[in-house]
Amino acid sequence: MDSMKKPFFNKVAVLGLGLIGSSLCLLIKQEGLAGTIAGNARSQATLDTALEIGFIDSAHSSPTDAVEDADLIVLATPVGANKKIAKAICQSLKPGAIITDVGSVKVAVIRDVAPYLPKEVHFVPGHPVAGTEHSGPTSGFPELFANRYCILTPPEETDPKSVALVRALWETAGSIVEIMDAAHHDRVLAITSHLPHLIAYTIVGTASDLEGQLRNKKTSNSPEEKTEEVIKFSAGGFRDFTRIAASDPIMWRDIFLNNKDAVLELLGRFIEDLTAMQRAIRWEEGETLESTFRRRRQIRRDIIEMGQAGSFNPNETEG
Amino acid sequence: MDSMKKPFFNKVAVLGLGLIGSSLCLLIKQEGLAGTIAGNARSQATLDTALEIGFIDSAHSSPTDAVEDADLIVLATPVGANKKIAKAICQSLKPGAIITDVGSVKVAVIRDVAPYLPKEVHFVPGHPVAGTEHSGPTSGFPELFANRYCILTPPEETDPKSVALVRALWETAGSIVEIMDAAHHDRVLAITSHLPHLIAYTIVGTASDLEGQLRNKKTSNSPEEKTEEVIKFSAGGFRDFTRIAASDPIMWRDIFLNNKDAVLELLGRFIEDLTAMQRAIRWEEGETLESTFRRRRQIRRDIIEMGQAGSFNPNETEG
Repeated sequence: MDSMKKPFFNKVAVLGLGLIGSSLCLLIKQEGLAGTIAGNARSQATLDTALEIGFIDSAHSSPTDAVEDADLIVLATPVGANKKIAKAICQSLKPGAIITDVGSVKVAVIRDVAPYLPKEVHFVPGHPVAGTEHSGPTSGFPELFANRYCILTPPEETDPKSVALVRALWETAGSIVEIMDAAHHDRVLAITSHLPHLIAYTIVGTASDLEGQLRNKKTSNSPEEKTEEVIKFSAGGFRDFTRIAASDPIMWRDIFLNNKDAVLELLGRFIEDLTAMQRAIRWEEGETLESTFRRRRQIRRDIIEMGQAGSFNPNETEG
Repeated sequence: MDSMKKPFFNKVAVLGLGLIGSSLCLLIKQEGLAGTIAGNARSQATLDTALEIGFIDSAHSSPTDAVEDADLIVLATPVGANKKIAKAICQSLKPGAIITDVGSVKVAVIRDVAPYLPKEVHFVPGHPVAGTEHSGPTSGFPELFANRYCILTPPEETDPKSVALVRALWETAGSIVEIMDAAHHDRVLAITSHLPHLIAYTIVGTASDLEGQLRNKKTSNSPEEKTEEVIKFSAGGFRDFTRIAASDPIMWRDIFLNNKDAVLELLGRFIEDLTAMQRAIRWEEGETLESTFRRRRQIRRDIIEMGQAGSFNPNETEG
């Protein structure tokens, strides 16, 4: 954290009380960063849980109600919901309020939210690169953001004081804050997060289908047994993929729909590269395989050197 | 571990003193399962290290010397070396000796080793599904195999007593032993281990190449900075892939060359499945994406239920 003192907001409205939303509320409570927190979620059960745990002070089924008089509004719903929410709340925002978000894509968020905001409201798009395989209002914990990057992508004309306040919020959460161009963010995250998740979701399906086939041949095909061997021997590498594939389906649907161009471009590159490996195996090009593997291992070593390998939370995955 | 008492061998010869070989030696020492352990490695430095750590009693640069009078011979070199070693040692094996291996492919091992063995030597192919991202004689630890599966693939005519002894050895190591057909093993491991590793190696390269390009555009392209952003934001999912891609390059080259058919078949299926996802993203088929992700998440939950999710060793990866 830099030398700036802790940011303080009279009222914070958090729209969406899943893993990120609830963790942020818990952090704000723990650090005393807000007078009150108004929470919004579509489901009454989520609101009840949030009140019961106590990380919000008031519960609102309507985002419009929640944002009233708020100094800071945090959009923490799946990114596909942003446009609708922006339209709904834009008339109720307090002049001078700061609105930020936690979405994993940034160009689409700016496209969906910015046009609806009054001039006197300051939009600072953000993305805490943190998460676990768990979701929902009971999965949050205030340490989620500690030692994780948080990327802010404010358009150039954004009020510097608002950017500084949002930065201070994340630094209070223990995050390392980076400012970046939104399009650049989407490309970097497409390769470091979105494509890995797509691949993980895919191979888990390929494995599951294969297992079904192997079982069919043995004439034992109860659903319980279907994935048995794939699961049993998952320690061989597959387990890491299933962990990533445990992330929230709606969140990820929205990420792929809203970062389509970058994901498709990188997916194309990946398939090209994979096809080259396929060819090297088919033609038994041992030297190509070995030298390729050797170069790739070095990247892991770079990650360890940069201290990004360890994790205080072994379940961390999303982004 | 079953009720059988600990197996004991007057002399064990371990050929190959990397992660698996050294861990097995340490386990044998710890549990007092052998009178002496003869170690073989190609590099004198490895032999010196092994003697210094003390997990072997005698060091041999020739596998033929190491196996003399041994009751149990463990092939723990990369699987591509098996044929040459089998040819070299076949005249020096003691009648009644048991030979086993720890290779990640089993059809090729049987193909490469079995033809050279005298009738009175018993071959029990094996595969401990355990590993870490580290390699070499200093990376071993006796707990590596605890609570991990170990798959034995003895051909039908194999001496049952020899199979029971090898089973007892792995059970003493804390492993859960499964007997399986070699071809079935190779197919199951192709999806649970070999394909995940190939994908991980590939995406790490795709990411690294992209990073190089992004940097070029910024006209900053020192090698140190090349992978900077990919590494920084690796917590978003990419990190799990780099961990898998840190495995030993020669070991993995040999696995792909020696399980070529199963890997190519599954790679074909995976690319088909990935292409279907690509298409769903391109055509913005949100429901397809969501329902697919939802089904895949269930598989992770099955893994957790089966108790295969946790790991006493957070670096575990190989297979």
